Amino acid sequence: MNTYDLIMKKRNGEILDKEEIIYLVEGYTNGTIPDYQMSAFLMSVYFQGMNAEETTNLTMAMADSGDRLDLSGINGRKVDKHSTGGVGDKTSLIVGPILASLGVPVAKMSGRGLGHTGGTIDKLEGIPGFQTSISEEAFIKQVNDVGLAIVGQTANLAPADKKIYALRDVTATVDNISLIAASIMSKKLAAGADGIVLDVKTGSGAFMKTLKDSKKLAEAMCEIGYMSGRDMTAVITDMNEPLGNCVGNVLEVIEAVECLKGNGESRLMEVCRELAANMLVIAGKVDTIDSAYPLVSDAIETGKAYEKMKEFVTAQGGDASYLDDITKFPQTAYERVVTGGELLDLCEETKGLDTGYLVSCDNEEIGMASLLLGGGRRTKDEVIDLSVGIRLNKHLGDSISRDEEMATLYANDEDRLKEALDRFLKAYKVSTSAIDKKSVIYDTITRMK
Amino acid sequence: MNTYDLIMKKRNGEILDKEEIIYLVEGYTNGTIPDYQMSAFLMSVYFQGMNAEETTNLTMAMADSGDRLDLSGINGRKVDKHSTGGVGDKTSLIVGPILASLGVPVAKMSGRGLGHTGGTIDKLEGIPGFQTSISEEAFIKQVNDVGLAIVGQTANLAPADKKIYALRDVTATVDNISLIAASIMSKKLAAGADGIVLDVKTGSGAFMKTLKDSKKLAEAMCEIGYMSGRDMTAVITDMNEPLGNCVGNVLEVIEAVECLKGNGESRLMEVCRELAANMLVIAGKVDTIDSAYPLVSDAIETGKAYEKMKEFVTAQGGDASYLDDITKFPQTAYERVVTGGELLDLCEETKGLDTGYLVSCDNEEIGMASLLLGGGRRTKDEVIDLSVGIRLNKHLGDSISRDEEMATLYANDEDRLKEALDRFLKAYKVSTSAIDKKSVIYDTITRMK
Repeated sequence: MNTYDLIMKKRNGEILDKEEIIYLVEGYTNGTIPDYQMSAFLMSVYFQGMNAEETTNLTMAMADSGDRLDLSGINGRKVDKHSTGGVGDKTSLIVGPILASLGVPVAKMSGRGLGHTGGTIDKLEGIPGFQTSISEEAFIKQVNDVGLAIVGQTANLAPADKKIYALRDVTATVDNISLIAASIMSKKLAAGADGIVLDVKTGSGAFMKTLKDSKKLAEAMCEIGYMSGRDMTAVITDMNEPLGNCVGNVLEVIEAVECLKGNGESRLMEVCRELAANMLVIAGKVDTIDSAYPLVSDAIETGKAYEKMKEFVTAQGGDASYLDDITKFPQTAYERVVTGGELLDLCEETKGLDTGYLVSCDNEEIGMASLLLGGGRRTKDEVIDLSVGIRLNKHLGDSISRDEEMATLYANDEDRLKEALDRFLKAYKVSTSAIDKKSVIYDTITRMK
Repeated sequence: MNTYDLIMKKRNGEILDKEEIIYLVEGYTNGTIPDYQMSAFLMSVYFQGMNAEETTNLTMAMADSGDRLDLSGINGRKVDKHSTGGVGDKTSLIVGPILASLGVPVAKMSGRGLGHTGGTIDKLEGIPGFQTSISEEAFIKQVNDVGLAIVGQTANLAPADKKIYALRDVTATVDNISLIAASIMSKKLAAGADGIVLDVKTGSGAFMKTLKDSKKLAEAMCEIGYMSGRDMTAVITDMNEPLGNCVGNVLEVIEAVECLKGNGESRLMEVCRELAANMLVIAGKVDTIDSAYPLVSDAIETGKAYEKMKEFVTAQGGDASYLDDITKFPQTAYERVVTGGELLDLCEETKGLDTGYLVSCDNEEIGMASLLLGGGRRTKDEVIDLSVGIRLNKHLGDSISRDEEMATLYANDEDRLKEALDRFLKAYKVSTSAIDKKSVIYDTITRMK
């Protein structure tokens, strides 16, 4: 077997077998296959694709390239949750405590934000004292004691994926469904759960802009998980505007607390309920999704989920008193209110009018506005400002009037605020005609034994 | 401008402009663009292709990456000749002296053999004393004095092509018409001639196996040359069997001498006549190809071309007495005659029969048999044995009988002889049914002002 022949084989549209894929992944990870051959191979995959079996074999080979987390020390069926990333997506902070309060162990390794999307680990670090870097032993003990632990990736999970992703990133070979699915799933498989619920975002703020591509990705990931012996569900959810009212790390923690206290924004709560209910099914807690919904509602209404959140925060060293009294979180130096009039006057159709409707949003631009405020990072090493961000009072389909407060931008730097505001305002379109509100959940795909 | 965007652009099937192509070629040559990005780009070109303008721009950028030979010191229009490479192709050794004897200057930089194809420089080194490495100044002086000089590539011609070719060679991105055409033509353009006659080989012993691909390549190269201000002709010639009777370095020099003495094998002479006549047209010596043929015949019949060959060999330090008396060339230790019976018995259809017809030849295997005898090299640094090779008495379409001598293999090593013989015998197919003889010239493409 040699690399040249395997590049040629894929280039000519042939199917690689398991051994051939392992040869490529192992060789590239240990350095015997050079970058330039791997990038030629990846470009061939971009053009010729991979079938389900190849994609699964690629995923397994990458998952096998490093450590695999051993969750056998945790009692019960472990269910992981993964979001493909979006703007204002704080569902893990809400779904985790709900599940744990219902007796389903949640052992989650999570990431930091990059580009226009946020990361759960950054958000949790907004709570004073919260530790995201703890030993594997302490991680497992906490899941058994509290039912929930969320930590940054400490183990060497899927190093092949890390190396291959870095190469794809500079050779224009990122946007291929098989490669994207394999990248996500290799880390998930290495993270050891028995089942996985995927939140596949779709729309202007998501990695996948169209519903068609999002479905394809969801199907590919479910197939990989299923072929690797996992129970899989993928929920395809809307990302054409931020999820919930807040974008920004501390702001999103505060919003998650509000949700757990029963005051969540409706679309955000709908996504959380759907994810949590599917996780309960996969965990074997209930037999049908319909019997799962009441449990989720109950966990919030009784305050059990919120208590679990505080217990979890405390267990990881965070000061839970901030959750009871959110005014304790540090305030930003600047709070810039955006009125409906500012948006109305920016669009030709509604210029000078007193009312209009929010009809579209370039959601990636909202994420970029938050990044510009200091809440996100362009490169992995940038330091971020956890307190800045955006709070929205209006969503797509809502009417806005001239003097109404549409949103608030929180900043600590005047120049950054100016730049972010400009980007924020340009992201929206208003019109005199109303539009129907989009559903937030488009589809659910399940692959279970 | 950045490399990532250019890879993406080509990947998406868009057209790159001149500046973008120069950016890529310059960046890759000076090392600011890494191998892994260039290989991803080349794989994109493999799938998306390049149009004529892109191909010409790529060629020009590569030609501009190093020295350009200045032939302005040579009087008259300079016409170069280039063959895409084949087995037994000694046409330069015959056409060069013919042209020079007719007063057309031939200043030729030539290559060494690699793989199953031979190279003119190796062949000339089979003549004792012959120097292939001379200064540019002496090279130009010799062309003015003698009318012909053939040297190895000393100047730094098209280093970008050298670097890109080496990368294509290990990333399965060799077989793309635009990249092949640009690679050949960048060196030809840098070599400074006013016009170029291309001998594009087609068939089992050629780089291009099908007539369709060979035509495409010929058209692409003529277009590049024309758009760069050169007069171009491409002759598409047969390479489904060795050209002429001999394969091997000294053996081919001897065959060239025979041709110049008027005793050439018919197919080989047909190709030489066609190439030489087209070169005379491009040089402006005659107006039409029909008025060129008699000049070529005359150059041979009068012995002028042969005298020019000796003059040229002498000028480059070679001992021309070897040409007058070919028995002076060193003999090999082994001469293995292959009889018709050996071939007849190897094919199921003709086993045990007394006669049959040569119906097909895997010509690349004949080239490999010569290489195995020691006459060629697998890698650039291998030392070769100039005296070994193969002499054929039969060609495709010929009848063979059991006791007839079909060929002779010349070797200096018994093991190598055994291996080469096995390969040689398996390259042919014989049948009881005769086939029509193939023509040796398939097509001629001309692009001239």
